Amino acid sequence: MFTDKQILRIPGPTPIPPRVQQAMNQPMMGHRSGKFSALFAKTAERLKPYFGTQQDVYIITGSGTSALEMGVVNTLAPGDEAAILVSGNFGERFAKICERYGVIAHRLEVPWGEAVTPELLDAFLKEKPQVKAVFATYCETSTGVQNPIAELAEVIRKQSDALFIVDAVSCLGAVPCEMDAWGVDIVVTGSQKAFMLPTGLAFLAASERAWSVIEQNKSLAFYLDLKAYRKSLKDQTTPYTPAVSLIFGLAEVLDILEEEGLPAIVKRHELMRDMTRAAMRALNIKLMAEDAYAATTVTSCDPQGAFDAEAMRKALTKHYNISIAGGQQHLKGKIFRIGHMGYCEPLDVLQVIAAIEMSLHQIGAPVELGAGVKAAQEVLIAHV
Amino acid sequence: MFTDKQILRIPGPTPIPPRVQQAMNQPMMGHRSGKFSALFAKTAERLKPYFGTQQDVYIITGSGTSALEMGVVNTLAPGDEAAILVSGNFGERFAKICERYGVIAHRLEVPWGEAVTPELLDAFLKEKPQVKAVFATYCETSTGVQNPIAELAEVIRKQSDALFIVDAVSCLGAVPCEMDAWGVDIVVTGSQKAFMLPTGLAFLAASERAWSVIEQNKSLAFYLDLKAYRKSLKDQTTPYTPAVSLIFGLAEVLDILEEEGLPAIVKRHELMRDMTRAAMRALNIKLMAEDAYAATTVTSCDPQGAFDAEAMRKALTKHYNISIAGGQQHLKGKIFRIGHMGYCEPLDVLQVIAAIEMSLHQIGAPVELGAGVKAAQEVLIAHV
Repeated sequence: MFTDKQILRIPGPTPIPPRVQQAMNQPMMGHRSGKFSALFAKTAERLKPYFGTQQDVYIITGSGTSALEMGVVNTLAPGDEAAILVSGNFGERFAKICERYGVIAHRLEVPWGEAVTPELLDAFLKEKPQVKAVFATYCETSTGVQNPIAELAEVIRKQSDALFIVDAVSCLGAVPCEMDAWGVDIVVTGSQKAFMLPTGLAFLAASERAWSVIEQNKSLAFYLDLKAYRKSLKDQTTPYTPAVSLIFGLAEVLDILEEEGLPAIVKRHELMRDMTRAAMRALNIKLMAEDAYAATTVTSCDPQGAFDAEAMRKALTKHYNISIAGGQQHLKGKIFRIGHMGYCEPLDVLQVIAAIEMSLHQIGAPVELGAGVKAAQEVLIAHV
Repeated sequence: MFTDKQILRIPGPTPIPPRVQQAMNQPMMGHRSGKFSALFAKTAERLKPYFGTQQDVYIITGSGTSALEMGVVNTLAPGDEAAILVSGNFGERFAKICERYGVIAHRLEVPWGEAVTPELLDAFLKEKPQVKAVFATYCETSTGVQNPIAELAEVIRKQSDALFIVDAVSCLGAVPCEMDAWGVDIVVTGSQKAFMLPTGLAFLAASERAWSVIEQNKSLAFYLDLKAYRKSLKDQTTPYTPAVSLIFGLAEVLDILEEEGLPAIVKRHELMRDMTRAAMRALNIKLMAEDAYAATTVTSCDPQGAFDAEAMRKALTKHYNISIAGGQQHLKGKIFRIGHMGYCEPLDVLQVIAAIEMSLHQIGAPVELGAGVKAAQEVLIAHV
């Protein structure tokens, strides 16, 4: 087994394309040089289509959480009220950040594995007309659920002036996003998911509506002060030192994404979702998300006690060097999650399914070798 | 001229050693995997000697400024008073962060190019016994001055319970630092200076005294909440997604630093400082810092109108692909700064001096070619 051939099928970080690795190997460059500024400004500009926005996209050196916090601290003040749509672990993170800043967080919770529907949100907002912001998770990584952001935005825009702030960390770049057309106010994502980069960057865009709030906000933040990022981007730079080598990589990532084109990328991810789901069904493994809300970037599977998910994951790592994810919070040890995102093709999905089947066999779980692979092949072959 | 042979002689980012580039090329890894956790915990442990501490060192995905802000937001509260030793641009940054959080910042300012002496601090603190923290810059990158941190700490410890918080961004790893022995409470640095990594990481250590304050502090921070980093490091991990590829690089950097050994590294930087200063003197270019407080990582030079510093810098880039830094704030366009830090050897210093001489010739400034090089050679040869 090649020790450098680690196959990452977790929902981020995702594998780095060799071209991107090479781009990151460029010699270091002064981050205040004219050459870097030109690259930086152009790269930020090229991110806009993935957000579906005419607004500027800001690049933050930090994790996705740093940008989620930016979405909170720049728009709200202590005592403000917010609605948080909690469909899993990352929805809850928004609520925790709000509470840290003294924002009153009203949680609209759904059971893990379910989506927040427009109907639920409509009823919830009618009872909480005072909320100044609504926070949602586009793809809830912990459950493999994709919330219907366009429809949720429509509900909000119809009955409220609240800002709509969306965590799209584990899907942007692989899913449709029309921030401007849908009426979403802030979208946040990270570098290590569909953007195929190492961890370390986050991206954020804000609507004109959001900016009118941000400009008035007396935010208690320095590093995460969005106004400072806006001022600097006008000068083609960042307020604080950016992660230069990751920006080199991002420019190359954008080349790759532009070559395939967003519509084809979205379709590839839908295909990988459908293949994975067909395989799991063929293996009699329960899917956590229903078809209508199944994420295209990650599939959550619940063995419901038929086998030990952790033992299977360990066998997968030990025998095949493949990493998939386990459950989070109360689902720890109970479920497993397959990432199919970024630098991942339909053939890679066949590979991980085959390896899961063999790992099940190796831990003594009842499994028909090849049954999942065949079901996924049938989905794939219909598309080729 | 090779376009990929850019010679960075700015005070950060500094060039990346090829071994470190290669290490960063390792395939991406799940940041919650056992393998990464083991690497992360060991790497954090190996940072301790450069801080001179038995305390844990925290690794933050962010710029140096993010860690400076951590030093403020986790120790102080609105209405608290702090003393800020301002000897240049980066001292002023501490003051600005304090003021953002409603902390009353008392500035002890010295003219750019001078150090804050123990006597000055002693007198200042006698007038401000109420300050809860004293902020200082170890190496003030904007002026090339190294403040006498050990002596300043002694002054504080003798007459105050205030925390002593030090920005060592542009020197740690190249200078002596005995945080525990000196009685410094928080030391902060960045990845892109003496640590020879790309931009994107910051490191911070805090004393037991600091922790007793931090644990009581109701910090208005989430991403920059030090308590969360402490809790996670006990589990060999980070509270939020770390920049994995930079951690791969950091482990390799620590190999390189350990091979040379900190005492030899410190001496190499002192030698490069002495060479640079001898050369500038031979070229009749004024040095901003006096000998006693001259930084070993960056030398600030003031042509005092004898030639156009910006024209010289431009010639240096155009003809020789070498980047040196200009002045900041009111010194913009007036001075130039040579970085000699990290992956930089005495022979590299000869190279940049030779190129500066030729650039001076090319912009029509009076210069005796070789005079600076010879003076630097004489310093070097006495050490070989």
